[in-house]
Amino acid sequence: MGIFSSLAAKGNNVLATRAEEDVFEALAKTNKFPKARYEREARAIVLEQKRLTASKMVLPIVTAGTADLPVAAEAKVTAEIMGQRTELICDVGVAGLHRLLGHTAKLQKANVIIVVAGMEGALASVVGGLVSCPVIAVPTSVGYGASFEGLSALLTMLNSCAAGVAVVNIDNGFSAAVTATLINKKIEMEQ
Amino acid sequence: MGIFSSLAAKGNNVLATRAEEDVFEALAKTNKFPKARYEREARAIVLEQKRLTASKMVLPIVTAGTADLPVAAEAKVTAEIMGQRTELICDVGVAGLHRLLGHTAKLQKANVIIVVAGMEGALASVVGGLVSCPVIAVPTSVGYGASFEGLSALLTMLNSCAAGVAVVNIDNGFSAAVTATLINKKIEMEQ
Amino acid sequence: MGIFSSLAAKGNNVLATRAEEDVFEALAKTNKFPKARYEREARAIVLEQKRLTASKMVLPIVTAGTADLPVAAEAKVTAEIMGQRTELICDVGVAGLHRLLGHTAKLQKANVIIVVAGMEGALASVVGGLVSCPVIAVPTSVGYGASFEGLSALLTMLNSCAAGVAVVNIDNGFSAAVTATLINKKIEMEQ
Amino acid sequence: MGIFSSLAAKGNNVLATRAEEDVFEALAKTNKFPKARYEREARAIVLEQKRLTASKMVLPIVTAGTADLPVAAEAKVTAEIMGQRTELICDVGVAGLHRLLGHTAKLQKANVIIVVAGMEGALASVVGGLVSCPVIAVPTSVGYGASFEGLSALLTMLNSCAAGVAVVNIDNGFSAAVTATLINKKIEMEQ
Amino acid sequence: MGIFSSLAAKGNNVLATRAEEDVFEALAKTNKFPKARYEREARAIVLEQKRLTASKMVLPIVTAGTADLPVAAEAKVTAEIMGQRTELICDVGVAGLHRLLGHTAKLQKANVIIVVAGMEGALASVVGGLVSCPVIAVPTSVGYGASFEGLSALLTMLNSCAAGVAVVNIDNGFSAAVTATLINKKIEMEQ
Amino acid sequence: MGIFSSLAAKGNNVLATRAEEDVFEALAKTNKFPKARYEREARAIVLEQKRLTASKMVLPIVTAGTADLPVAAEAKVTAEIMGQRTELICDVGVAGLHRLLGHTAKLQKANVIIVVAGMEGALASVVGGLVSCPVIAVPTSVGYGASFEGLSALLTMLNSCAAGVAVVNIDNGFSAAVTATLINKKIEMEQ
Amino acid sequence: MGIFSSLAAKGNNVLATRAEEDVFEALAKTNKFPKARYEREARAIVLEQKRLTASKMVLPIVTAGTADLPVAAEAKVTAEIMGQRTELICDVGVAGLHRLLGHTAKLQKANVIIVVAGMEGALASVVGGLVSCPVIAVPTSVGYGASFEGLSALLTMLNSCAAGVAVVNIDNGFSAAVTATLINKKIEMEQ
Amino acid sequence: MGIFSSLAAKGNNVLATRAEEDVFEALAKTNKFPKARYEREARAIVLEQKRLTASKMVLPIVTAGTADLPVAAEAKVTAEIMGQRTELICDVGVAGLHRLLGHTAKLQKANVIIVVAGMEGALASVVGGLVSCPVIAVPTSVGYGASFEGLSALLTMLNSCAAGVAVVNIDNGFSAAVTATLINKKIEMEQ
Repeated sequence: MGIFSSLAAKGNNVLATRAEEDVFEALAKTNKFPKARYEREARAIVLEQKRLTASKMVLPIVTAGTADLPVAAEAKVTAEIMGQRTELICDVGVAGLHRLLGHTAKLQKANVIIVVAGMEGALASVVGGLVSCPVIAVPTSVGYGASFEGLSALLTMLNSCAAGVAVVNIDNGFSAAVTATLINKKIEMEQ
Repeated sequence: MGIFSSLAAKGNNVLATRAEEDVFEALAKTNKFPKARYEREARAIVLEQKRLTASKMVLPIVTAGTADLPVAAEAKVTAEIMGQRTELICDVGVAGLHRLLGHTAKLQKANVIIVVAGMEGALASVVGGLVSCPVIAVPTSVGYGASFEGLSALLTMLNSCAAGVAVVNIDNGFSAAVTATLINKKIEMEQ
Repeated sequence: MGIFSSLAAKGNNVLATRAEEDVFEALAKTNKFPKARYEREARAIVLEQKRLTASKMVLPIVTAGTADLPVAAEAKVTAEIMGQRTELICDVGVAGLHRLLGHTAKLQKANVIIVVAGMEGALASVVGGLVSCPVIAVPTSVGYGASFEGLSALLTMLNSCAAGVAVVNIDNGFSAAVTATLINKKIEMEQ
Repeated sequence: MGIFSSLAAKGNNVLATRAEEDVFEALAKTNKFPKARYEREARAIVLEQKRLTASKMVLPIVTAGTADLPVAAEAKVTAEIMGQRTELICDVGVAGLHRLLGHTAKLQKANVIIVVAGMEGALASVVGGLVSCPVIAVPTSVGYGASFEGLSALLTMLNSCAAGVAVVNIDNGFSAAVTATLINKKIEMEQ
Repeated sequence: MGIFSSLAAKGNNVLATRAEEDVFEALAKTNKFPKARYEREARAIVLEQKRLTASKMVLPIVTAGTADLPVAAEAKVTAEIMGQRTELICDVGVAGLHRLLGHTAKLQKANVIIVVAGMEGALASVVGGLVSCPVIAVPTSVGYGASFEGLSALLTMLNSCAAGVAVVNIDNGFSAAVTATLINKKIEMEQ
Repeated sequence: MGIFSSLAAKGNNVLATRAEEDVFEALAKTNKFPKARYEREARAIVLEQKRLTASKMVLPIVTAGTADLPVAAEAKVTAEIMGQRTELICDVGVAGLHRLLGHTAKLQKANVIIVVAGMEGALASVVGGLVSCPVIAVPTSVGYGASFEGLSALLTMLNSCAAGVAVVNIDNGFSAAVTATLINKKIEMEQ
Repeated sequence: MGIFSSLAAKGNNVLATRAEEDVFEALAKTNKFPKARYEREARAIVLEQKRLTASKMVLPIVTAGTADLPVAAEAKVTAEIMGQRTELICDVGVAGLHRLLGHTAKLQKANVIIVVAGMEGALASVVGGLVSCPVIAVPTSVGYGASFEGLSALLTMLNSCAAGVAVVNIDNGFSAAVTATLINKKIEMEQ
Repeated sequence: MGIFSSLAAKGNNVLATRAEEDVFEALAKTNKFPKARYEREARAIVLEQKRLTASKMVLPIVTAGTADLPVAAEAKVTAEIMGQRTELICDVGVAGLHRLLGHTAKLQKANVIIVVAGMEGALASVVGGLVSCPVIAVPTSVGYGASFEGLSALLTMLNSCAAGVAVVNIDNGFSAAVTATLINKKIEMEQ
């Protein structure tokens, strides 16, 4: 919280991920940063103090199941605090392909896509096969038994038969968002 | 080879899997079983001595990539020596969904399907989502690095988000074929 | 619970697995689905609204020890909500073979069998050797130390020397039941 | 070979396990130990120079499949060079229980039993359940895929639900034989 | 508790391991088995109803550190309820060899020894090298970090360079005691 | 080789990775594709038939040690056949920081960087901390012992404390190059 | 606490690591050791009864991030109770090299350095490359997902490409401090 | 070999580890470095061109078994080319404690000790308990089955209950020697 305060005091936009709600409440009680808000699903404290230029392109964040939402939400708030416009495409796991295929056009327009999936993590390969932009894949620890806390999804994504898929740590929505944002910013910077 | 000979001498159909070609050649030189043949891709010696009633339904054996063919071939010769009619649907990995989707009708007619895939093994989940029959999934050791000799595909298949997918050992085309054949025989026995 | 309600509102039979009792109690307080009941051992909420045609054949669910019962119970409620008649054969682990062998006749009549076992998981191989129908094996996380949360039983079942054994995820009674039911329905559909 | 020679020179019985045949041939060429013989299956060089008092009880060495024979043979030559009478009971894997059950009486008379099994290694539990003497279990690296070079059989045996089963290293027929012999000698010493 | 009661009702000696104290208290409140007692360190409920003939030989149970005592205590109550006289030799880990060596004479007289050790589990090899009787080794989950919940000690013991060491599951004092007792009973039976 | 030929016959640029030299020699003997060449270090067959527009930006491919060169070379030929200009920056492992720091300016100009490292794989984090563009990290199987065939480098890279690092499969120079090229093309397309 | 008391009673300096605060409070209530103090971050009880000669050289304890502080603090109190002067250099992880490089001169003067790092653990290699004294590396369990409770940092450190790096158990600040102190004492003893 | 030549050309002492004999022979044929020699057991090419001041203290290198000698030999040539006097103490594994204990006085005089052991790797703990100097432990890949290519010995050494033991990579005699030499040099530098 010390780090948060010192960054915030300089007028920056600040993001604290993996923060429990009671940390936010303690911060709120100080009344120092009335614009700070708590994003419950993402478990993040967000403080927007500077207005950001919104990105031109929308960054799609695709999830396999509803249980993957907290990780997707972390990716979303991270990308947004860095200026990205995002769209969450939920619950389009590979066992119901039609739901995913309905979003094909939208996905094919993106500069870069974040795919969030636990259990068998097959969604990254399928999305990777549908588009020609890079895919940043986030395995999640959703699952049980032989998912081994996200190992299954991690290995799946690393072995993706679709080229152009790169992977971040299990449940690391933050790092996926930073990587995707860096890519998108480089692209839009050139325009 | 002793086991092969003693089974063959009783007039049975005999299958020896995981047999190198030189074993077959040694057998061939004995001239005892002139009808024995070597299936190179499947690495199997096959001896059909009894005519089998062919199954009514075709058993689809679906593979993700050409490198998975030896395991698929083992499944095929195993199922056939047990009387199944089979159809090999090759190279329909999830990175090129359209190729797989072109076979949807055929897959939806089957009583049971064998899916053979290495690397990320996502094909089992996708097929499982397209059909309402049981899927017997065979992870293969195809891949390198983080495929860990088939572990990646194995975990993927065990964590399949599509219900109705059951898994056999890595590279075990034989066991998948036996399981699928047992299912199909039970079904056709009832007719 | 939203998903449960929306499925239930359409008059379907609904099953929610891995649901804690307080979720059921919250549901019960709404008084919307008075026919919903909580299956404590299976940790499942069950709502039967449509009468199902009962299957002709009984689906045996065989467990190695009493500690495996919750997973077996999940398989049982799942199969029953899909119309299967089931029989739970409990505590017939391989260290006391006579108990298992007393059920041989019953097992040999089945179309398909579910075997639920933790620790060393040897029961699947032994049952597989006694019958000629497919066996769906469910490793459980029962055990400690070198059972590594079900890994031991999982590997045992994947390496079964009995052909015709296929495996689902650790503790996944649901998926075993769906697979077994799909098989049995295909068979009875043909009659 | 230096160690072998120096032990042999003292008139001891000597056993060299995990020795390739060419090592034996080199030894044979020296003509120093004409009574030394090579046990091919066990991959062992054996030199009996002292007559041993044979044990009263027979030590049963039970194997699941023919592929386990080399490890069983190592156990056999080790036990014999230490004076044990042994009996090899082969190919009685759990998928064909009747073959094993035919040996029940013999097993129940033993002071201690060695069980050698790869793949799923379930034989140790089943034998352990049939007898009331200690069982020394040797997992073997027989198998492929998810047998992970003997890990599957090792975990199975460590998790045995039958009490009285203790385990040695994968493929370590030697250590099993030493342990079993120590037990048997203690017993017969008391008589 | 049902199992406990039914065994106890027959007048047997009964042992319930891995039982929390509240289970014992519930049992005690029933007043059915006033002789039942709770062994806190071993986490076991013990009911001795039949007088046992005490074994002639003492069974040494050797532990590396004080943290291994609960597992050693489980072994001790198990062996005692089966009639063994035991002696606990504590805190003689290999980092202080002199403490262990002070017990050498005692250890060399035993018929069989139980060694209980966590962390690096080296004690089993060292004891095995000092004696010529079988050693039953119990790895414990004592340790942290790279002990991986007992895996380190388990692997150490399986790889023991001292012959005659056999291993049971992590923390399984019960199984070690049963194995050691079976050995000792066989020996004393012969006298 | 069939796939290579059919792609080549259409006048495409074709790349076959993980191809041994004898495969190339067989291809060369057919005289069909005289422009095909073999890149020994990369173990790739390359056939450039169409002239590509060279990328404006140079893609740096950074390696920790000389043993990582084959994987870096695979990345290099892959990126080049897709039109990228590349620069190989070799042997700048973290144990000699000054060598790496000498390239800082060059790295900070890039749109995207490929980092190839085995053993402890720390280079990806260090490069990631020096730049503000995305880093595609390739763990290699270089190392021995506890490198576990690349697992060590893989885990290191996934846990990178520098944001903006995404990872591909062990030794997968191909996939890293495709991902980096997709990013760079998106960027230059916008210009 | 018995061990603590008996050591303390002899007038020794005593250190109890991995002690929760309530243990200290119980000790404090006894009023026996009024000079005992609780080091909260290190989770250690410290009792200095004998004045120590302070070491001439300062022992640097370097940490990658603030989350590694508890392990660094354990190393610090351990080294200090053994007479070492220490300096904690915090939060100099490899993603921000300039912070680390600012301490180069200080590090190059040391006799031995302790490096504490979790996540990817790359700091040990980088420090090892900057100095010519031995580095004792402590992996920590800081991280999540593919850090696998410290395994990632452990493997990184074992595979360090900088020579002169030796590693202790995950989170084992105590052992690192003992090793470093032994080294430093040997050096200063010679002076 | 290029690196070797360029270092050698400057008149340095050069050591190339993990070099097969044919590499040395190729080097020898060039006649450029007639003083270069091949150390077969260590698999190292050694070129001493500068006379080194021999260390005052002897560095003991202790091995558990003869199979560990190649790694010990690598440590020995490495330490010697850096000026250390060394003494190899062989085959003093913990299963025969008296052999080790006979060297106690010698070990207690050392500044630092290298311990090389495979299989269960217990030697490091036992030596660590006998001395008060730092111990650098090298796990080796000697063993089979559950030694998992050195993992067993590695974990044992990391979990050593003796303080003052630090560990290097599996089979890494080189790094152990560098670390031990750095320690010893610091000590003797002070004299």
